[in-house]
Amino acid sequence: MASPTTVIDGRARARTLQLQVAFDVERLAGLGVRCGLATVLVGSDYAAEAYARRLRRAATAVGIEHRHHHLPPDTTREEVLALVVRLGADPAVSGILVLRPLPPHLDEGEIFTALDPAKDIEAVHPENAGLLALGRPRFVPSTPASVFHLLDAWLDEVDIAGEAFYGASTICVVGRSNNVGKPLTTLAAERGAVVVSCDENASRTGRLARYTRLGDVLVVAAGVPGLIRPEHVAPGAVVLDVGINPVRDPATGRTHLVGDVDPAALSVARAATPVPGGVGPVTDVWLVQNTVLAAERAAKHR
Amino acid sequence: MASPTTVIDGRARARTLQLQVAFDVERLAGLGVRCGLATVLVGSDYAAEAYARRLRRAATAVGIEHRHHHLPPDTTREEVLALVVRLGADPAVSGILVLRPLPPHLDEGEIFTALDPAKDIEAVHPENAGLLALGRPRFVPSTPASVFHLLDAWLDEVDIAGEAFYGASTICVVGRSNNVGKPLTTLAAERGAVVVSCDENASRTGRLARYTRLGDVLVVAAGVPGLIRPEHVAPGAVVLDVGINPVRDPATGRTHLVGDVDPAALSVARAATPVPGGVGPVTDVWLVQNTVLAAERAAKHR
Repeated sequence: MASPTTVIDGRARARTLQLQVAFDVERLAGLGVRCGLATVLVGSDYAAEAYARRLRRAATAVGIEHRHHHLPPDTTREEVLALVVRLGADPAVSGILVLRPLPPHLDEGEIFTALDPAKDIEAVHPENAGLLALGRPRFVPSTPASVFHLLDAWLDEVDIAGEAFYGASTICVVGRSNNVGKPLTTLAAERGAVVVSCDENASRTGRLARYTRLGDVLVVAAGVPGLIRPEHVAPGAVVLDVGINPVRDPATGRTHLVGDVDPAALSVARAATPVPGGVGPVTDVWLVQNTVLAAERAAKHR
Repeated sequence: MASPTTVIDGRARARTLQLQVAFDVERLAGLGVRCGLATVLVGSDYAAEAYARRLRRAATAVGIEHRHHHLPPDTTREEVLALVVRLGADPAVSGILVLRPLPPHLDEGEIFTALDPAKDIEAVHPENAGLLALGRPRFVPSTPASVFHLLDAWLDEVDIAGEAFYGASTICVVGRSNNVGKPLTTLAAERGAVVVSCDENASRTGRLARYTRLGDVLVVAAGVPGLIRPEHVAPGAVVLDVGINPVRDPATGRTHLVGDVDPAALSVARAATPVPGGVGPVTDVWLVQNTVLAAERAAKHR
């Protein structure tokens, strides 16, 4: 008989990480080093605004100043670039996050390239994306980092040596976005696992289950509510659900968040992250941690 | 009964590509734009010296000037960095390749980061590795580019639409080096294929065949002579062998080159590249093509 699925508690893990980050902030303050997080949002977006509020809570919880720059939707390219460059030069700002999505008249790549790479805590500048791809990251982006943070912690709890586990395992990643899916495959490969990467093509051609079932670890970052059903999960796999999809309940009219994994699929897994309360809470703290890391490096550099 | 394996003729494909590049060089010369390739080698290395000679032939064949800088093995970090910066500023040089391996006292990452990204034809600068990872490459590095150049050309010949083929196929890449294995998985993912990436861990844990046999396309870049045997190849797969391993014949004392794929495995495949005469010849021309591309961009920029 199968054991019940372990729920990987992202909120508990986030609290532990938060204590460590708060400790680092205090230690740095004792050395006269201050950390500051700046977020930039152009135009209105429900999810991005909620994210900025969560980041404010995560930053203030550890004693970091957070400044949010909310610009009108018709802000020009030149104005956004000027702000990004100004934040790069501001010694009170150690980490910068430009929130997605940007309005269509702005070229995301151009704006990300204008970021100071040393403050680019989500590693969206090409140089940081490259350092990550080359195996010597300046910053590990928050979502893929949080996935492996949770996975490593779970391995610790069940007393499996990470090195042995990854070297003998297969990690399947569904989704290939620049900020989540691609870095996930990079981090999985670095741990020595066999890595299987697929996207909606595999689903469209009826081959999704064939590949997702290869995964001893299945990480889903497709942005498709309920994409992964019981038949997509190998019995006993560890499932990490990165999907955060707002779904409107027609009965109540209220919006709630669901993952990419259908709840019915979770019972097949040995362990799994819930949505909400799984990967998400860790990402916020991770981004704050990167801000602290950036401040510490900048202080060493001076 | 199985059809005989098609040998994918890299030399023929390289000749065709060379004609195109020569045409471009002439066209640019007519506009007053000159292309120049600079290679840098520190110390002695049999394979690197052979590679520099091949690049000289490839460059002169299309009317491009090639300057080879062969430095003594005890050249200091400062001297190498100074040369790289000088080549970056030299208007007669449009493409720069620092040959591997560098002596142990030199930090490869530091030297690659000193390259002018606009002349970094093998995309080893973090910014170029990042642009590639983000799906908007400045230069596609020569070996992974050549693999897909041969594969695309083969699809054309057998009259299969590339888009449909890749979207319904699985590409397995064996090997994960920064310059070959990793960019191969990036290019494979961009074509919409399911991508399976593995390395020596899969072999050590006895799982290699399980994963290589998933590949409708199997690309081997492990640097292990004869790693892939018949049982590793799915019947009818297309096999591209990136391995170029010098092997000394004990009887004659002579060194010859063998691939990562055991010749016996080729009969299982539908089509395959030989070693030598497969991927290798295309890479030389590809690098020269990137040099021409760099010159053309620099001219537009002026």
